[in-house]
Amino acid sequence: MADHASFDSPDDRIHAWYWLETGDDPQRAAEVIAGEQSSGTFTAVPGETPALKERSGARVEGLEILGVADQPSLPGGMAGARYKHCRLHLSWPLANLGPSLPNLMATVAGNLFELRQVSGLRLLELRLPPAFAEHCPGPAFGIEGTRRLSGVHGRPLIGTIIKPSVGLSPQETAATVRLLVDGGIDFIKDDELQADGPHCPFDERARAVMAVVHDAAQRTGRQAMVAFNITGDLDEMRRRHDLVQALGGTCVMVTLNAIGLAGLLALRKHAQLPIHAHRAGWGYLSRSPALGWDYAPWHLFWRLAGADHLHVNGLANKFSESDASVAEAARAVLRPVFAAQPMAAMPVFSSGQTGLQAAPTYAAVGSTDLIHAAGGGILGHPGGIPAGVAAMRQAWDAAIAGIPIGQHAQAHPELRAALGVW
Amino acid sequence: MADHASFDSPDDRIHAWYWLETGDDPQRAAEVIAGEQSSGTFTAVPGETPALKERSGARVEGLEILGVADQPSLPGGMAGARYKHCRLHLSWPLANLGPSLPNLMATVAGNLFELRQVSGLRLLELRLPPAFAEHCPGPAFGIEGTRRLSGVHGRPLIGTIIKPSVGLSPQETAATVRLLVDGGIDFIKDDELQADGPHCPFDERARAVMAVVHDAAQRTGRQAMVAFNITGDLDEMRRRHDLVQALGGTCVMVTLNAIGLAGLLALRKHAQLPIHAHRAGWGYLSRSPALGWDYAPWHLFWRLAGADHLHVNGLANKFSESDASVAEAARAVLRPVFAAQPMAAMPVFSSGQTGLQAAPTYAAVGSTDLIHAAGGGILGHPGGIPAGVAAMRQAWDAAIAGIPIGQHAQAHPELRAALGVW
Repeated sequence: MADHASFDSPDDRIHAWYWLETGDDPQRAAEVIAGEQSSGTFTAVPGETPALKERSGARVEGLEILGVADQPSLPGGMAGARYKHCRLHLSWPLANLGPSLPNLMATVAGNLFELRQVSGLRLLELRLPPAFAEHCPGPAFGIEGTRRLSGVHGRPLIGTIIKPSVGLSPQETAATVRLLVDGGIDFIKDDELQADGPHCPFDERARAVMAVVHDAAQRTGRQAMVAFNITGDLDEMRRRHDLVQALGGTCVMVTLNAIGLAGLLALRKHAQLPIHAHRAGWGYLSRSPALGWDYAPWHLFWRLAGADHLHVNGLANKFSESDASVAEAARAVLRPVFAAQPMAAMPVFSSGQTGLQAAPTYAAVGSTDLIHAAGGGILGHPGGIPAGVAAMRQAWDAAIAGIPIGQHAQAHPELRAALGVW
Repeated sequence: MADHASFDSPDDRIHAWYWLETGDDPQRAAEVIAGEQSSGTFTAVPGETPALKERSGARVEGLEILGVADQPSLPGGMAGARYKHCRLHLSWPLANLGPSLPNLMATVAGNLFELRQVSGLRLLELRLPPAFAEHCPGPAFGIEGTRRLSGVHGRPLIGTIIKPSVGLSPQETAATVRLLVDGGIDFIKDDELQADGPHCPFDERARAVMAVVHDAAQRTGRQAMVAFNITGDLDEMRRRHDLVQALGGTCVMVTLNAIGLAGLLALRKHAQLPIHAHRAGWGYLSRSPALGWDYAPWHLFWRLAGADHLHVNGLANKFSESDASVAEAARAVLRPVFAAQPMAAMPVFSSGQTGLQAAPTYAAVGSTDLIHAAGGGILGHPGGIPAGVAAMRQAWDAAIAGIPIGQHAQAHPELRAALGVW
């Protein structure tokens, strides 16, 4: 199911795969889920004729029993002697809802999680008919636009996050940015907690930071991309976007779960800059293996809605996510949405990253079309930020060339020094 | 913690309470969470001075150990000999973010769920400083406006949902609505799966339904409130809202998790009609007791953003939620947001409801300011829909008067007949 080359539907229907746990008969549970999410309800209703059901009902396309457990994963479900673990494949006629992302979300991730037939349910994968390619904007910049605006080609963008997350004044923020751009960084982002508070008003911060960025660009000939966090209500986001654009900035950032699909779609309609998409809150959607969302179907909504960069955590990260999960998420971001319309976006790796993750990241995703954000991995370099940035690049040079990092370090003093602290 | 009379902050800070499970030392885990969600990061960063931390750091206000477990609830966390269950109380300076709902969400429900220090984390409660009252719109209609537009006073609105959920044509939908309005129903809503598909285009459906509603209103002198599902991108929602308004309709509906906070805030700015808020997807946010959201803090975001009606499931429902959880959710909706600015909204009870739930619902919430939606409880009445609606009202009359339902039924034939089938 996950070995397809894109998220294209095999026909003109919407397809979704779930991990399902049920104390009920699995086939009956599958039919209840299909009914609840389409023409049916708990009990037969007068108007649900066989013709209507044939036309509008969700279809159980497949149901594979994977195993059983003695205890339910989640409370509140129907009691059973055993709890069957299944892979459930459902499909819907596109005509039920049309190619609308918000209504798609209500359909494939709506009431079904609350059903008593369910003691575990997780959305694993989505495949969509081509009408979504025609009706959804997708990223306006994606990989190519990001490379063009940042001037970085043939290797990942080396990035970092402004820290402390909150509490710096606009001038203090700009001073931090000065150190980073003087050090040759490609990409800088606000922390997702940095908003528009009275101690660090957005406009003042943007002006101070962009002055520093332009100053460095004049000296170096290349402008670092700064993702300003414009998360807010739609008017605020549009106004802040316009200010960043007027100041010559090249990226804006939003927290997806905080603004929602209608928010991103409206911003995408307005935006003239790449949209850097933060996934804060992803943990409550995914941390229980028996509930919620896998990253592949979740990210697909936001990519179709216009996210250019999507956070995927990082290998050997400081959070709770496994490397396998991170790698799978990044590969999902790099997979074409549709073969005929790839809607390419860039995965963003962060959290406890250093050059040591360059080779395994490259091996896991097979691409350099990514942003690799490191904090201590750059700032902690004994030679300072310029040496830290150089060491990250050298680590990627080695990874791309297939040279062991220790061997590459012999001829590259910044990398050699970095290996002592990474 | 849950016995306060409103969601007012006790001071000028943002307060949040969590259920936390950790394999780490609880105090250390609490500090890591507070740091991650404010000025800090995993490791100390140069700029995080004591003064900055004092000014911008989140504060651990309380940490109460509730118990221990041998196994972690969620995978990926730090291993411990035992897993401590705690009630954690954090607070933030309002100045970190300002009174912005999207940024509030990123702050109180952001990265923290992914921390390795966490093997369980659930947001239990929020209390907010008064600046949110000034900056958030809240419901434009709420209880009073809903009663005014529906002409229902002193008792709940008796409602129902158009079924089959999807698959009816506009004319078939209108025919169903005709039966319901002729039967004296107060409130009708689209199913959340009903969108704007080619078999039932929104405009055609709205026109057909409103013709029927107006026709009945001319005869009865009272217009049923119909919540049309306008869920979509912002332009679609605004256009559909305007059509409903132009047709003389009195309510629009959206699926909150599908449109997001920026979507609801923008719709609220535009809307001239009450906004009926569906919670489809609530299961993936709440079904694991060790993860995600309690209803009280979750609903608060949407109510502050302008939801007039909020779904709370129903007592003895067909889903997996307990009665205690439903009752708590409904009481949260009826609790003032701020003592000085209550932002009153109406809870919506549904799922397997009949008149049998009238008395327990009244006992649980102590109010008639609610919408009680029943499907089979009305449609299944042997005397038809008018008798079904009458029986629901009689059940509420009995509940409000404190008369046992069986006793009340003796003098009310519709209720008597209903008791045979409910």
